[in-house]
Amino acid sequence: MADSSTCLPLVPQSVTDAHTKIKEHIHRTPLLTSKTINDIASSPDPAIYLSDSIANPSKPFDSEHTDGVPKFNLFFKCENFQRIGAFKARGAFYAITRLIDTMTLPVLREKGVITHSSGNHAQALSLAAHTFKVPSYVVMPQISTSSKVLGAKRYAKEVIFSGSTSHEREAAMAQVQARTGAIFVPPFDHPDIVLGQGTVGREMSEQFQELLVDEKAQLDAVLSPIGGGGLLAGIATWFSDKETTVFGAEPSFQGADDAKRGRRAGSRITSVRSLTIADGLRMPVGLVNWEIVRDKKKVEEIYSVSEDEIKMTMRLVLERMKLVVEPSACTTLAVVLFNPDFRRLVAESQNGRPWNVGVVFSGGNTTVKIISTLFADDDASPKEKS
Amino acid sequence: MADSSTCLPLVPQSVTDAHTKIKEHIHRTPLLTSKTINDIASSPDPAIYLSDSIANPSKPFDSEHTDGVPKFNLFFKCENFQRIGAFKARGAFYAITRLIDTMTLPVLREKGVITHSSGNHAQALSLAAHTFKVPSYVVMPQISTSSKVLGAKRYAKEVIFSGSTSHEREAAMAQVQARTGAIFVPPFDHPDIVLGQGTVGREMSEQFQELLVDEKAQLDAVLSPIGGGGLLAGIATWFSDKETTVFGAEPSFQGADDAKRGRRAGSRITSVRSLTIADGLRMPVGLVNWEIVRDKKKVEEIYSVSEDEIKMTMRLVLERMKLVVEPSACTTLAVVLFNPDFRRLVAESQNGRPWNVGVVFSGGNTTVKIISTLFADDDASPKEKS
Repeated sequence: MADSSTCLPLVPQSVTDAHTKIKEHIHRTPLLTSKTINDIASSPDPAIYLSDSIANPSKPFDSEHTDGVPKFNLFFKCENFQRIGAFKARGAFYAITRLIDTMTLPVLREKGVITHSSGNHAQALSLAAHTFKVPSYVVMPQISTSSKVLGAKRYAKEVIFSGSTSHEREAAMAQVQARTGAIFVPPFDHPDIVLGQGTVGREMSEQFQELLVDEKAQLDAVLSPIGGGGLLAGIATWFSDKETTVFGAEPSFQGADDAKRGRRAGSRITSVRSLTIADGLRMPVGLVNWEIVRDKKKVEEIYSVSEDEIKMTMRLVLERMKLVVEPSACTTLAVVLFNPDFRRLVAESQNGRPWNVGVVFSGGNTTVKIISTLFADDDASPKEKS
Repeated sequence: MADSSTCLPLVPQSVTDAHTKIKEHIHRTPLLTSKTINDIASSPDPAIYLSDSIANPSKPFDSEHTDGVPKFNLFFKCENFQRIGAFKARGAFYAITRLIDTMTLPVLREKGVITHSSGNHAQALSLAAHTFKVPSYVVMPQISTSSKVLGAKRYAKEVIFSGSTSHEREAAMAQVQARTGAIFVPPFDHPDIVLGQGTVGREMSEQFQELLVDEKAQLDAVLSPIGGGGLLAGIATWFSDKETTVFGAEPSFQGADDAKRGRRAGSRITSVRSLTIADGLRMPVGLVNWEIVRDKKKVEEIYSVSEDEIKMTMRLVLERMKLVVEPSACTTLAVVLFNPDFRRLVAESQNGRPWNVGVVFSGGNTTVKIISTLFADDDASPKEKS
């Protein structure tokens, strides 16, 4: 990775600079709205409404008891339509262009880049490297599913298998680096990655203003998933000089809510062992990202949601919005629908008009197989069984 | 339904007139493109490519043997994003506005509208009626899944249950009509429905020209699913004075390819008993629609696809395009990917440049439950099991 001393500072202008660099290589993904989801989110109790039935007219959207009910206009940033199916393409492209700037392209082409990841980052890095004819090496655990291996192989020069422990993985990486001189590009914990992911926030600002035909309009709030923290840190950096309040969303299952717990404890939690279905959010917040994520001035609050809430949200997005999103991406809307603290805060903060809330759908890399496993014997759709 | 004698003729200008009437009530759904799908469709054998692996680098997109390989630029008309999740909203809104014109709104509000359907048409009609404060009555078989009943109940004034035979259904309809005077709006076999659905074609023409920034640009071909035939007849009507060749797509399972067989036999097939997964395409072509569907000058050819081909296509669209589409909607892209006759025709017709083909995704009304059932034990994703 480019030496941190050469990185731009983590301020909004640096996100703009990153955006200029990567714009031509990424998709400007759409910012979508849904009247149905607004109605459901703005009902007194979306949880009861959804688990009971999707369209039960005896429980109308507009209850007469609207005191304390938050009202939402939601704006969905669809990074599931991003290249490789997730926002990770942004950070990866920015990382590669930064390496080219600092090392020159011929040198980078000789050395190549390397990462360890079984998911979206490896595919994103390989795609970005491939675009500039830079060789990429991906270290993956031997137990990776073959679809992930195939995904990585599509653009990588080489996929190297290792054992599953971090020790085995690092040994495998060191071996490849000794042989090739490949530069390590970490999946989330680096200023360049943060600035690249921050372009999600910048596009949301632009697109919200375009939708409202008002170049001064600002979202009231934005919700981003948080795992390693690159995306949330980038988005919080972008909005740090704006009126928009930034929130994080993470799964609570088996302690995956490390960012929330770390903020309460006053120190970063460095180890998480969770098998949450939101598999992009299983790792603890990175060190660089923690400095932004912990900062109340940049991230107002972090909320967590249960596995069932993530699943109900995923079902809603698939069936009503007709969008394929991965479980990690659903944590944000799940907070809007189900988290009582967030909903109370919105109800108390809004002055007679709905809050305009940006909701980041971070990716869509799931499969029909995974959907089948998640919903095959599911009582989240009880009415289908009767 | 409005008396046929008052209907506009089935010509392109009438589609434009219908569009003017319904524009404000329907979504102008996006016309999307996908480089990945273009690459797969333009490879020598998408079937082997897909069933073998999604990203196997040993089978590159660009084979050296490109003789006879069709090349595609595909344009996907996403009616899965239409109101109520399918194109049916178009015909329903046009039918209601026509009834208002011929009968006046007060009279229609007194009588109401009625239909029998367990699917998208009932929901579409109820929504359209509800928009104009016209009561709607929906007759459904008692065995309908509760999700469909709930969907219909959302906007209908009344859902009436009947037995499953057409005799029982018609008796239940007659009873309601005797009581209310409700006007029957059929699901597909009426000129007004045809003209309403034809607006799909009109928007595709407009959007294709907008994408190419060329107001003379015309699609080389358009593929529409065909069940009852309203959509295909409408689209064929719109394109009947243009350079665009129109094709139909239907499932072959258990004789659901009645349109193709009827054209070969020279007469309409009036009965189909198929349980194809493309459940929107199980009925035979209607009488009004047949006159257009049979006409070689309007519909060049009708192709059929197998259940496995529909499933492989559905998986591809979900996993790669991140769009939720229903099986019926996948027949069109399945023809592009898998039908040897269509692919040969394109390979022979194109002169050194890819064909610009409009592909209609007619709807997205499926559920995670249905997806689970379709793909739970599926060898369409063999690599996931290894």
